[in-house]
Amino acid sequence: MKRMDEGMPFLLQYENVAWYENGKVRILDRRVYPREVRFEVCETYQEVVRAIADMVTQSAGPYTAVGMGMALAARQARGKKPEEQSVFLRQAAHDLAHARPTTANRYGKITFRCAAVAEAALEAGRDPVSAVVEDTLESLGRRYGAMQLVGDRLEELIPEGGTILTQCYGETVIGALIRAARRSGKTFRVFCAETRPFLQGARLTASCFAQAGFDTTVLTDNMVACIMEREGVDLFTSAADTIALDGHIANKTGTFQIAILAKYFGVPYYVTGIPDRDKLSAADIVVEQRDPGPVLSSWGVPNTVPEVKGVYPSFDVTPPHLISGVVTDKGVYVPYLLRQYFDSEVRDFY
Amino acid sequence: MKRMDEGMPFLLQYENVAWYENGKVRILDRRVYPREVRFEVCETYQEVVRAIADMVTQSAGPYTAVGMGMALAARQARGKKPEEQSVFLRQAAHDLAHARPTTANRYGKITFRCAAVAEAALEAGRDPVSAVVEDTLESLGRRYGAMQLVGDRLEELIPEGGTILTQCYGETVIGALIRAARRSGKTFRVFCAETRPFLQGARLTASCFAQAGFDTTVLTDNMVACIMEREGVDLFTSAADTIALDGHIANKTGTFQIAILAKYFGVPYYVTGIPDRDKLSAADIVVEQRDPGPVLSSWGVPNTVPEVKGVYPSFDVTPPHLISGVVTDKGVYVPYLLRQYFDSEVRDFY
Repeated sequence: MKRMDEGMPFLLQYENVAWYENGKVRILDRRVYPREVRFEVCETYQEVVRAIADMVTQSAGPYTAVGMGMALAARQARGKKPEEQSVFLRQAAHDLAHARPTTANRYGKITFRCAAVAEAALEAGRDPVSAVVEDTLESLGRRYGAMQLVGDRLEELIPEGGTILTQCYGETVIGALIRAARRSGKTFRVFCAETRPFLQGARLTASCFAQAGFDTTVLTDNMVACIMEREGVDLFTSAADTIALDGHIANKTGTFQIAILAKYFGVPYYVTGIPDRDKLSAADIVVEQRDPGPVLSSWGVPNTVPEVKGVYPSFDVTPPHLISGVVTDKGVYVPYLLRQYFDSEVRDFY
Repeated sequence: MKRMDEGMPFLLQYENVAWYENGKVRILDRRVYPREVRFEVCETYQEVVRAIADMVTQSAGPYTAVGMGMALAARQARGKKPEEQSVFLRQAAHDLAHARPTTANRYGKITFRCAAVAEAALEAGRDPVSAVVEDTLESLGRRYGAMQLVGDRLEELIPEGGTILTQCYGETVIGALIRAARRSGKTFRVFCAETRPFLQGARLTASCFAQAGFDTTVLTDNMVACIMEREGVDLFTSAADTIALDGHIANKTGTFQIAILAKYFGVPYYVTGIPDRDKLSAADIVVEQRDPGPVLSSWGVPNTVPEVKGVYPSFDVTPPHLISGVVTDKGVYVPYLLRQYFDSEVRDFY
């Protein structure tokens, strides 16, 4: 199985996302990285559903994990009667797609295609598992290809020697941006909001940029205004779990308030990613509410007394008037005019 | 020694702040509360300086701790030659006042008065230690008296059944607000931003409100916009470590950005406290920069790789255009007109 992105920071090496090998899917546990490098090993697609729901992997990780999970489903289907196989594969595609609600549409594009690939292989008497793995790797390659164009365009927006602020972990576009900057030789400073409660900004994004040689600083999530006021931030950028066609985007909680702060300070905010053609407006965005346990603790240690409640909206929704531009593979779009993205030929992305 | 505020949550019982007894000052360690209830015991004023610098106590805690620290200094002075005593006491007053730079003016009001009290006692052949302890308790009583008036006015601003948002730990005014609400029978919901990296909001403020019977919810610092949008927050309130006469205030980092968000959502922001007559404008505010270690870790566990830098401005400065009113013992002032506070008689506060 090819190892695709050597020379990049550990987290940005594709095989460390979710990898099928010999009946097992090995998923890097991003809940503990970089304190600990451990892999969750799943032997059934149901275990992959659970791993995604539990945030063993996140950001773009699940796009690969759901495909590899479908390889497990194909393996599980092999022992079943032909008439049951199709039902089982479609159930698996549904379950994997709905591991997390906000991105179910994106996951579903991958899983239902994988189900069809597996069915076709079974019908033709070919190995459905390797067919699904191959399809998942092709899909991963397509996404990295498109996201490299996004990263190239984002890199063009950053002034030489400039300063960017980001939060959470925009995996694919982080890798693409690092590759683009290496190619052009551009340097810039990176400020990462730590992104409680899961600390993706500190643990994942800051680790990648720092290990790739960038001047990288972590701030707590309450220091954004302070940093924008004194550090000369050239732009704020984030990926998005949904980019609805009316310009509303959903991303990790905190994005909305940083966008408000960016507007206050006159700092442009660029969202990266491909618009979701099947989400017309904010009304189509489902915001996942998670168990508040992690909000009430740090590394599992309680932060307060048991009488206190917590709240954990996993995402928030940022309206188009706070977004300066949506950086896609085809160019930077005005958030109100995202339908234009579909006016010309659309690359197959998932 | 009288125990002054029984029936209140543990943290709001005065003797749990910083207490002199038998040559020792016992300071509740707010760095670990409520996970652990432990006291730092100081036997010299220098140990009290270190405890305040290390944030063993914070918010209004140091106002009592520096006075009790002066009692230790008076005790240390007793063994010295008369001509050295005054120099020693003034040095102690200076060192305790400068334990943290942003509030050095406030601490100094207490410590230099304590030095004078100790000198007068020594000259009169009375015990300087008990004289300083007595003076410190009187000062504590004065502050609680004035802050109860602040709490009463703040309580009047909260609608019955309403919702308030706060961050960090405004100790004295929290106690005053709880007392005022108990008296009036008013109930309201409290949302506490956790206030990384020290988690004062989660650990201290939320504990107090919840243990006093209020419906209390903790949010991470990146959820403020989300909560303001969906929970119908009636007002944001915070104490302040500096209230300059031009209406700029310094408070725990995060206050500035919540004030920006409050303005965006049309939520009033009320600062509580007594204006600092000796700070004319933002130019007189010294923002303490702390070691970034706590920003890069949680409960001592590293959050990222060693190549990543951190930043830890302990306070930020909020301009008057983001402040709806400054709630003082004498009424609610327009932030631009704080000089009016000094037009009528001023209560002795420190």
